[in-house]
Amino acid sequence: MENNFTVDNDAFMKFLDLLATESGRVVARYYQTDVSVESKADATPVTVADRLAEEKLRALIGREFPDHGVIGEEFGETNADAEYVWIVDPIDGTKSFVAGVPLFGTLIGLLRGGEPLVGVIANPILGFTLCGDNRRALCNGRPASCRPCDSLSEAVLSTTSPLSSARHPQGKNFTRLTEQVKLYRGWGDCYGYYLLATGRVDIMLDPAMKPWDILPLIPVIRGAGGVITTWRGDDPVKDPTSAAASGPGVHDAVIGLLNA
Amino acid sequence: MENNFTVDNDAFMKFLDLLATESGRVVARYYQTDVSVESKADATPVTVADRLAEEKLRALIGREFPDHGVIGEEFGETNADAEYVWIVDPIDGTKSFVAGVPLFGTLIGLLRGGEPLVGVIANPILGFTLCGDNRRALCNGRPASCRPCDSLSEAVLSTTSPLSSARHPQGKNFTRLTEQVKLYRGWGDCYGYYLLATGRVDIMLDPAMKPWDILPLIPVIRGAGGVITTWRGDDPVKDPTSAAASGPGVHDAVIGLLNA
Repeated sequence: MENNFTVDNDAFMKFLDLLATESGRVVARYYQTDVSVESKADATPVTVADRLAEEKLRALIGREFPDHGVIGEEFGETNADAEYVWIVDPIDGTKSFVAGVPLFGTLIGLLRGGEPLVGVIANPILGFTLCGDNRRALCNGRPASCRPCDSLSEAVLSTTSPLSSARHPQGKNFTRLTEQVKLYRGWGDCYGYYLLATGRVDIMLDPAMKPWDILPLIPVIRGAGGVITTWRGDDPVKDPTSAAASGPGVHDAVIGLLNA
Repeated sequence: MENNFTVDNDAFMKFLDLLATESGRVVARYYQTDVSVESKADATPVTVADRLAEEKLRALIGREFPDHGVIGEEFGETNADAEYVWIVDPIDGTKSFVAGVPLFGTLIGLLRGGEPLVGVIANPILGFTLCGDNRRALCNGRPASCRPCDSLSEAVLSTTSPLSSARHPQGKNFTRLTEQVKLYRGWGDCYGYYLLATGRVDIMLDPAMKPWDILPLIPVIRGAGGVITTWRGDDPVKDPTSAAASGPGVHDAVIGLLNA
């Protein structure tokens, strides 16, 4: 029975693929249309595409795993103290989505006893589905991994909002970091973590995260051989409020500089 | 004969479309492959895709208009004092291209007597071809225009390199501008100008441009009803070293703030 855990993960990874495909169909229908945008209480935007896709995801999960919990960005918590809890964010990067820029994605993760078990980052426009289970990552079915990078001066760094990163209490150190890397770009939201886990950037930083933004990313980044912590260097499962993700070769340097 | 000028432009616009399509075929073949990257004398990267696409463009132009000049990023100037001179940059945004990020594009423009006559921004991965002739702009054959925006607080601003913009001699004012707009993002290179000319961002700024980066953009931005100047507010044809492009409703405010 020693393979039980892996077998479970395989089944969950397959189900993640299905969820991402179905949610992606809804989202793609509204991409680059004049979808109307509302501001939520926290001033983040939401569209009908977010809501319809989350409803779709909740329906699919409820049918397959009626005793699992679900936490979603748009419709809150359902049975959140279950052993297995799904975290869903059908459009991470709504500001990009609304501008018709394809740098957004669907994030779905599964927690078991509060620990991230599997997760997916998917984008129906660019056509990728990147799953991970902390031990491996698969992009469109093929192994994905962070690339080697041992020096900040060779690293490509990305962040979602250059302004939020620079204005953060650790923002001066963030700015120093942007000056030390080879290239700094604003390839944002979950798309930046996808780039990290497929070996195309080396560091992805976001100063403000919500549980549904970061928890699904964790098994993907770890599965690709990367490290993900808070900006302080702490466990992002216990404190899902910021993200510092990179390959293992530069993570200590990133955290050291952010906290200098 | 009063329509002669427009007829000329129509023919040139059609030819631009052909050039963008043919160049795009070359570029798409190398996208998200492990293309090797060289650093040029000015430290900007170049790939075999840039070179092959520029060769293709030069061959097509030379066959159709043997007495026209050509200025290209990779192969320099040919007959640059001709009445008509083509400006070609097959991959504007090579750093994005190399990272497998689709925010790059092919830029081609035509000058007549030194003045930009027609231009195109095209991307074979995202599937758009946006042409302009200073009086109109067409995206995949349909009219394109900047969206109305009369207030910085309602504007979406983008730049290619957040660090270069912040470090520019006018960088402090740039940073103040990023704090006054509704949203600031790093959707870079010619893709940002495409977003402006199709009504999806309101301001696009780059502190450092080369003639082949900016001259092809000018007839597109103006054709979409936008304004494009240097960061000082000057004519970018005479000084093609920086770009401040926006809709007409906020351009004075942008230039005022950048030069405060």
